Amino acid sequence: MRIAYHLVTTDERIGTTLARAIDEALSNTALCQVCFSLTEVEVCQICSHPGRDRRVVCVVEKPADVIAIERSGGFGGVYHVLHGLWSPLKGMGFEKTKMAELFRRIPGAEVSGMGFPRVEELVLATGTTVEGDATALYIAHSVKEENVAITRIAQGLPKGGELEYADEVTLSHAISGRRTLR
Amino acid sequence: MRIAYHLVTTDERIGTTLARAIDEALSNTALCQVCFSLTEVEVCQICSHPGRDRRVVCVVEKPADVIAIERSGGFGGVYHVLHGLWSPLKGMGFEKTKMAELFRRIPGAEVSGMGFPRVEELVLATGTTVEGDATALYIAHSVKEENVAITRIAQGLPKGGELEYADEVTLSHAISGRRTLR
Repeated sequence: MRIAYHLVTTDERIGTTLARAIDEALSNTALCQVCFSLTEVEVCQICSHPGRDRRVVCVVEKPADVIAIERSGGFGGVYHVLHGLWSPLKGMGFEKTKMAELFRRIPGAEVSGMGFPRVEELVLATGTTVEGDATALYIAHSVKEENVAITRIAQGLPKGGELEYADEVTLSHAISGRRTLR
Repeated sequence: MRIAYHLVTTDERIGTTLARAIDEALSNTALCQVCFSLTEVEVCQICSHPGRDRRVVCVVEKPADVIAIERSGGFGGVYHVLHGLWSPLKGMGFEKTKMAELFRRIPGAEVSGMGFPRVEELVLATGTTVEGDATALYIAHSVKEENVAITRIAQGLPKGGELEYADEVTLSHAISGRRTLR
């Protein structure tokens, strides 16, 4: 409401510019042919980047997750965006997601003249919610015949976490997943 | 304020009972001679429990952390409560903590007729705050001459966590600490 009032009561050009920007965003962005993240070209900047390790594929739920992981700077591979998680309670199966496309990526392919090698590791980076865990387990189960390593992002205490206020499941993961310092 | 009004306006016995309970708690609880957690006896129930693995010692900041980890049910060893973390900004060194007592525990000892074997693993379970991390690093550095494994609780996404809302450090830990599912 405040934005709407602001747009119609101030300089008209602001509204026109915003309308055009939304219009352009809608007509120019599409899904990457390889990872299904948002892009303005056929194959997104991450997939086509020569420095990224295309043998390691990080599986996430939505494009915003790609941006979050990229911001963390902790990942040098490529992505696969599912556009949904398994959620039987919401009647959400895998039909509307890019799950089949994930399995088709594993043997490797050539897209737009770019070579994508056989996938050697799937990093399952769906959220640690019930749906995220279920989807990760489904993928791990589905590709068990394939020669591909399956890893799951670490669960534990978030940065700045105090043990006293952590929930039991998180603490249990933090203890069982402890890492060797030396 | 509300509690105070309640105590003086209702049944007098409630206040008397509470006063006595606080008094008893103060005079009956002491620190365990082995792990420095709260106890009503010389050696606490966890340290004296025959089913706990006394070779694995989980190092925490305060007694409440012991209760939190016990509630999670994910740990079968024993504890060491530091009663403080390294915090130079607050003028807090290790003098007032039970750090020296931790190092003295490593070779093993006999306390109150109970045998405590040589410590084989220190699980550093201080919080993932700056002070918690600094204290963990200090311990890891201090015992590097000793033949003891040093592990740190896992950092990553808490239970129910969505990638989109996780901070960068947490996400970076979640990716770098990913675990093999198979």
